[in-house]
Amino acid sequence: MKFSDKLLNASRKNKSLLCVGLDPDPNLMPKLDILEFNKAIIDATQDLVCAYKPNLAFYEALGIEGFTILRKTIEHIPSGIPVIGDAKRGDIGNTAKAYARALFSTFGFDAATVNPYLGFDSIEPFISYQDKGIFLLCRTSNPGAQDFQDLRCGGGSSLYEVVAQKAEEWNVHDNIGLVVGATCPEELRKVRSICPKMCLLIPGIGAQGGDLASAVKYGVDAQGEKAIIAISRQIIYASKEKNFAEAARNMAEKIRSQINSHLASRQKTK
Amino acid sequence: MKFSDKLLNASRKNKSLLCVGLDPDPNLMPKLDILEFNKAIIDATQDLVCAYKPNLAFYEALGIEGFTILRKTIEHIPSGIPVIGDAKRGDIGNTAKAYARALFSTFGFDAATVNPYLGFDSIEPFISYQDKGIFLLCRTSNPGAQDFQDLRCGGGSSLYEVVAQKAEEWNVHDNIGLVVGATCPEELRKVRSICPKMCLLIPGIGAQGGDLASAVKYGVDAQGEKAIIAISRQIIYASKEKNFAEAARNMAEKIRSQINSHLASRQKTK
Repeated sequence: MKFSDKLLNASRKNKSLLCVGLDPDPNLMPKLDILEFNKAIIDATQDLVCAYKPNLAFYEALGIEGFTILRKTIEHIPSGIPVIGDAKRGDIGNTAKAYARALFSTFGFDAATVNPYLGFDSIEPFISYQDKGIFLLCRTSNPGAQDFQDLRCGGGSSLYEVVAQKAEEWNVHDNIGLVVGATCPEELRKVRSICPKMCLLIPGIGAQGGDLASAVKYGVDAQGEKAIIAISRQIIYASKEKNFAEAARNMAEKIRSQINSHLASRQKTK
Repeated sequence: MKFSDKLLNASRKNKSLLCVGLDPDPNLMPKLDILEFNKAIIDATQDLVCAYKPNLAFYEALGIEGFTILRKTIEHIPSGIPVIGDAKRGDIGNTAKAYARALFSTFGFDAATVNPYLGFDSIEPFISYQDKGIFLLCRTSNPGAQDFQDLRCGGGSSLYEVVAQKAEEWNVHDNIGLVVGATCPEELRKVRSICPKMCLLIPGIGAQGGDLASAVKYGVDAQGEKAIIAISRQIIYASKEKNFAEAARNMAEKIRSQINSHLASRQKTK
């Protein structure tokens, strides 16, 4: 099944645009085995999400053991829910092939984030996996995004807008999406207008301060779909106590319902 | 010891600007255990190089076993020779910290390549390891580099030139270097003029078609140093037969001597 269909199925079944980021940080967690922590979060939230998104950095920082934990975490996610490998890889063609193989074949992710800085031949090995989803970094949620992504390039467009335009052009297999932060609603609006049908992965809510209402308003497509609101710390570290899984579920339920309210009021004002 | 000193020591001791890329590809190698292959390449070339550079993609593609191989490969490299982790990571500040920890603490690399697309807060966690080297991707060696890196940004500079200018500005700990491909000598010349004292990591010779003479001419600093000519396939796959290590040594020796001839003729014409 294509990633986009798997995502839409999970999103409709769970009535959710929420994606939970599985980013284990031993300093923020209750004292617990990391795999057990991830499993408890998944068990507590699996009927509330459209996807899960482990960021590979947090597993790499744990050393070789981290990769066993990552693999077992992926295995624990119910097969109907897509898993996005947040890896932000990018390398020359020959090497990008190895990264695509690592993410899609070795780990078995349904989708991955990719850094566009190296251009088409660094992206092509990923998009040639036609059933997988590829989210190119476009306008990221962090303060440093301004340093290069906001630079005015030829034709008066900012670099992130050129990336969005190129993504449209390269999307021949209909499996490219874009990462745009909720911390920059105006940029999100512009990207949605350049790519009206593309799936947008939207981080930056919660710990990073992005606004949920405008993320929903500007992020979704005309049908109120094809947006993935990715939240990690605010949900998985909702409590550091024994009740962390219950607290995560309550927070996920609250945010899903807020998203759905914003969606409903958007439909009304259309 | 700071990375730059370790590099200079190895480079002077071995009279070499050559860095061998340890990128194991089971399709190109003789039939052999990968760790044994890497060890044989290191044993055969360690007096001819200034650094080694494993690209993490090739290890990740091997699955969890790949990380054990990578760790044991790093352990096998003599302690006087710096090891550059070619990882091209880039993520928001909080996550970049985890990547920097993974590369510098968990794996123990002396230096790492970093993708600049996410801007300063994605780079800062790396440069705060003041004894480590950070090579920002600037103008890469692949055809796709033109897609974004060559775009004209404000002030008539190309994006890769803006990256070089920012790298100068951010280099407060004197541990930033830049990646510039040998396939684009004119861009290499420009970057060297923007950053006269910075260490440049120069891939693209050999399989990618870059020119060694101009890589040396434009890549080195005024003293004929601070350039790392990174070659992988041309050396480690010089032969697919039993004599692969000897063939790798012969090729490394040949290239080191070509580099040194180009350096000598450069000194003469100065």
